[in-house]
Amino acid sequence: MTDLHAMRHTAAHVLATAVERLYPGAKFGVGPVVENGFYYDILFPEPISDEALSVIEKEMKKIISEKHEMVREEISLDSAVEFFKNRGQDFKVELLKDLKEKGTTKIQTDEAQDIDADRPDIAILYHTGTFTDLCRGPHIENVKDVGAFKLWKIAGAYWRGNEKNPQMQRVYGLAFETQKELDEYLNMLEEAKKRDHRKLGTELELFTIIDEVGPGLPLFYPKGAILRRLVENFIIEQQEKRGYVPIWIPHITKGRLYEISGHLQKYDAMYPPMDLPDEAQYYLKPMNCPHFMMLYKSTTHSYRDMPLRWTCTTTNYRYEKSGELTGLTRVRSLTQDDCHVFARPDQIEQEINLMLDMVDETYRAFGFKDFWVRVSTSDPNNREKYIGDPKIWEESEAALSRLVEGRGWKKEIGVGEAAFYGPKLDFMVKDVIGRPWQLSTIQLDMNLPERFELEYADSDGKVKRPVVIHRAILGSTERFLGILIEHYGGAFPMWLAPVQIRLATVSEDFVSFAQKLKDELTDAGLRVELDSSDLKVGKKIRNSAMMKIPWTIVIGEKETQAEPFVVNVFGQEENLTIDQAKLIQAAQDLSK
Amino acid sequence: MTDLHAMRHTAAHVLATAVERLYPGAKFGVGPVVENGFYYDILFPEPISDEALSVIEKEMKKIISEKHEMVREEISLDSAVEFFKNRGQDFKVELLKDLKEKGTTKIQTDEAQDIDADRPDIAILYHTGTFTDLCRGPHIENVKDVGAFKLWKIAGAYWRGNEKNPQMQRVYGLAFETQKELDEYLNMLEEAKKRDHRKLGTELELFTIIDEVGPGLPLFYPKGAILRRLVENFIIEQQEKRGYVPIWIPHITKGRLYEISGHLQKYDAMYPPMDLPDEAQYYLKPMNCPHFMMLYKSTTHSYRDMPLRWTCTTTNYRYEKSGELTGLTRVRSLTQDDCHVFARPDQIEQEINLMLDMVDETYRAFGFKDFWVRVSTSDPNNREKYIGDPKIWEESEAALSRLVEGRGWKKEIGVGEAAFYGPKLDFMVKDVIGRPWQLSTIQLDMNLPERFELEYADSDGKVKRPVVIHRAILGSTERFLGILIEHYGGAFPMWLAPVQIRLATVSEDFVSFAQKLKDELTDAGLRVELDSSDLKVGKKIRNSAMMKIPWTIVIGEKETQAEPFVVNVFGQEENLTIDQAKLIQAAQDLSK
Repeated sequence: MTDLHAMRHTAAHVLATAVERLYPGAKFGVGPVVENGFYYDILFPEPISDEALSVIEKEMKKIISEKHEMVREEISLDSAVEFFKNRGQDFKVELLKDLKEKGTTKIQTDEAQDIDADRPDIAILYHTGTFTDLCRGPHIENVKDVGAFKLWKIAGAYWRGNEKNPQMQRVYGLAFETQKELDEYLNMLEEAKKRDHRKLGTELELFTIIDEVGPGLPLFYPKGAILRRLVENFIIEQQEKRGYVPIWIPHITKGRLYEISGHLQKYDAMYPPMDLPDEAQYYLKPMNCPHFMMLYKSTTHSYRDMPLRWTCTTTNYRYEKSGELTGLTRVRSLTQDDCHVFARPDQIEQEINLMLDMVDETYRAFGFKDFWVRVSTSDPNNREKYIGDPKIWEESEAALSRLVEGRGWKKEIGVGEAAFYGPKLDFMVKDVIGRPWQLSTIQLDMNLPERFELEYADSDGKVKRPVVIHRAILGSTERFLGILIEHYGGAFPMWLAPVQIRLATVSEDFVSFAQKLKDELTDAGLRVELDSSDLKVGKKIRNSAMMKIPWTIVIGEKETQAEPFVVNVFGQEENLTIDQAKLIQAAQDLSK
Repeated sequence: MTDLHAMRHTAAHVLATAVERLYPGAKFGVGPVVENGFYYDILFPEPISDEALSVIEKEMKKIISEKHEMVREEISLDSAVEFFKNRGQDFKVELLKDLKEKGTTKIQTDEAQDIDADRPDIAILYHTGTFTDLCRGPHIENVKDVGAFKLWKIAGAYWRGNEKNPQMQRVYGLAFETQKELDEYLNMLEEAKKRDHRKLGTELELFTIIDEVGPGLPLFYPKGAILRRLVENFIIEQQEKRGYVPIWIPHITKGRLYEISGHLQKYDAMYPPMDLPDEAQYYLKPMNCPHFMMLYKSTTHSYRDMPLRWTCTTTNYRYEKSGELTGLTRVRSLTQDDCHVFARPDQIEQEINLMLDMVDETYRAFGFKDFWVRVSTSDPNNREKYIGDPKIWEESEAALSRLVEGRGWKKEIGVGEAAFYGPKLDFMVKDVIGRPWQLSTIQLDMNLPERFELEYADSDGKVKRPVVIHRAILGSTERFLGILIEHYGGAFPMWLAPVQIRLATVSEDFVSFAQKLKDELTDAGLRVELDSSDLKVGKKIRNSAMMKIPWTIVIGEKETQAEPFVVNVFGQEENLTIDQAKLIQAAQDLSK
């Protein structure tokens, strides 16, 4: 990726070179590489609008055709300050002063910056024709090798992210090696826009967010609530056939529980407490583990009863910053398909394998064909930072890798990325338009059993600690639905569609026939709507298509005469023709 | 009930008379009538124990056999103070002083008291032989007519309920007209004790309450969680086949929502807010109505779409006093099978009727055969205190009565008991041992649509307010389960049993056959356990019966030879014999 990274970085300099030519007096902030491209924060003499982007692009192409070398120069920090001061580049001067005084220009550790590197005692300049930037590189040798690029949006950005500083304009560019890749990416963006689950959520009457209730707290209309239930029930069925059983826990607890678990001291996304001075401080639960642990601890356990495969689909509340909330994919109310398995160490492999079965079947069902697994393991050179029996670590890490490999799944090993309490698996899936999402997690835990002093009586009569395996397949219902809406573009397959069939009457004369048919279909477990309004039938079909309903069936004279139904299938040119007696079976076959 | 009340009241005086004879120097507090009997708060010279009750009872019987008249006397308050002071009855003196100074002896309005009545200017005494009490009566004429009674427990009670006051002993008595009634009641108490859902909840591994989580917040073990789900899914099925649809709402909201609804000002069981100074105060929801209203309001509605039958089974949190919490029947986390119907006024009758259908089918399914309906209507002499269209009031009150009558259900009319915003129906059911419980509620609401300014476009083009009908059939899952556990005494019918069948192997040799059978039964949707331990088979059967599992099937030599299964049926002397090929069908037939 270094070459692509260097090319994108050079493209940012080309952008700045063009801006310097077109807008004399423009002051430059920073211009880092980001995913799929780059940006540059610029204070223009006058703010520019979107229309300016094509003009800048044209100038960039000219610069590229001029085939400038990217010329590197090392000078002292003081000379660099002098240089940029003479050019009126105040932001660069500020960065250089910071570099001189603090040895870094970064304010936050995750700040986009590229002038620090490992020699903070000198300044490195890059010249592109008449433009000179303060920059550590690396760059490609000549601007002629900048690939296909496009400036695609402008956003406001405060200098160094601080709203007390001047507001600049952040010009975003995409850059790829080839025009084909750029076009594909642009198509994907276009497609993603159409599939935006927030837009579809409103259009398809799935969910809404209401000011008086609060940000990040979606409410679901009936169609969205049915979709939620279909997804949650799918998971429940998957679990039960594999011997997982439900438990139920309340959404609140005394703070004492989180003192024991340690969350109160270190978990920062909790809502503030509900203070009952005569009794206790109560907290809304941000996760379920402590409740599960206490329930296990409330009775005695024998090696014979293990493993206990306990599940609970329940809503957690996390106080995410309002600026970070997005539709369903980043919420404050997240309903986890949570599972904790309490196992003997000798059962770890079998339990992980059972979980992988479920991941496999779930991804197939929802059409996620492209996914990979990240295995986070301990750092072999740093054994002392991990708690628990080293033998359990060794065996379970080996088992995790072996099991994932055995299924032929793509995997990455993150050596040293395990938490101090156990190794884990993270599953990354790509949706139909190629965007990656993190979904399932399987995590071993040797810490909570210790903190909660969990026990079971082993066959040798000794009291031992169980291992806990945390697992969520969907992650959260809300986020999964957000992904699913975009994955399907709102056009759900028959088995997931909140409304599967809409009946559209040609006129008042056929309403009673249609109503009877609707009742029959409903009794057969199908989700059916009837449009008996006085709209024209063509309009009714278009309305049904707007709602992306899989099947629309017009009910008129022929249908009441027992002629076959003509089914208008969403997203398909050709209609289906189905004998009346076979309609229910045909619909049910698609609903599995 | 006045006679029974007077008799019980007289029995309390007989109790005091006996105590005065047996424990000279005892000081008497108050001795009111309560459900099924009476109590008396007494400060004994030395605290008494349960053994003393039979001695006191014996003395009471003697007093009754002495046939004392209950002699009423009116004297001035001052004379009465003098009288009781001379007898060392400090508590009576205190009451008389309060009566003189404040015109009442009550501290709280619901305090048990009987000396106020309508003439606070005089004291009324009742003499029973040598015992004299300060009391308004009424009493029966002679103690000889006190019916069958029994002293059944002693509890601690602070004088006037204030823990800063002396601690007295509260002696409880039961009293009925006949010995038969008393015996029946004592049997019922005995039966209720065996059926106590808190006891069964632990024995049957259904639920628990954990200190670190908090009082009134039960956690459910797998068997209890399965029971929850069976009950909740029963309701969901009942709803869906009648065209009710789910919605989903978060458990919290900004306080703003409750300002609009008015709850913030007047509802006192809310948990204190979670305070986010930069954003808002968030509240845990104690009820769902405001969320439902906002969701309705978030889109436009036409007369064509009405009624909207929206449901949500979701947990509410109410901060009940810890002293008032009881197992599952009085909790802080209550999961309501909530429904709000948004209807046009002309749809009220049809919608109520649909709800009554569901009440009917639900009570039948759970074996509640004895129930009655309380119809709360407006006060015709006080029309101005009710909001909403008087025509809607009149028609819906008539409809409520007519619909209940039409089904031949027992009903009571509570004239003037309607809330200011609409009439309602409350359903009272008796469980198998005759205890009454309030379950379902159907309530019209013309207030919230007004406060939330809900609208729909009517067929005449005008914008109108819908009527809201609130409805819960179970009330809350937790309370309903508490009642259900006691109703069935933990021996659930096949369709509700968390575990329906337990297989018990005779020896290790039959485990693989049993495991295969278990898998087949599980795949057929049955809930099955396998006891393959090395316990004796007789012990296995007893263990299964302890858990009140409907069917226990021993798996041994004969069973592996395809001979019929012998099914040990819980609570039944005779075993069932079922051909192997017919087992699944037989179990499924009982599971409906």
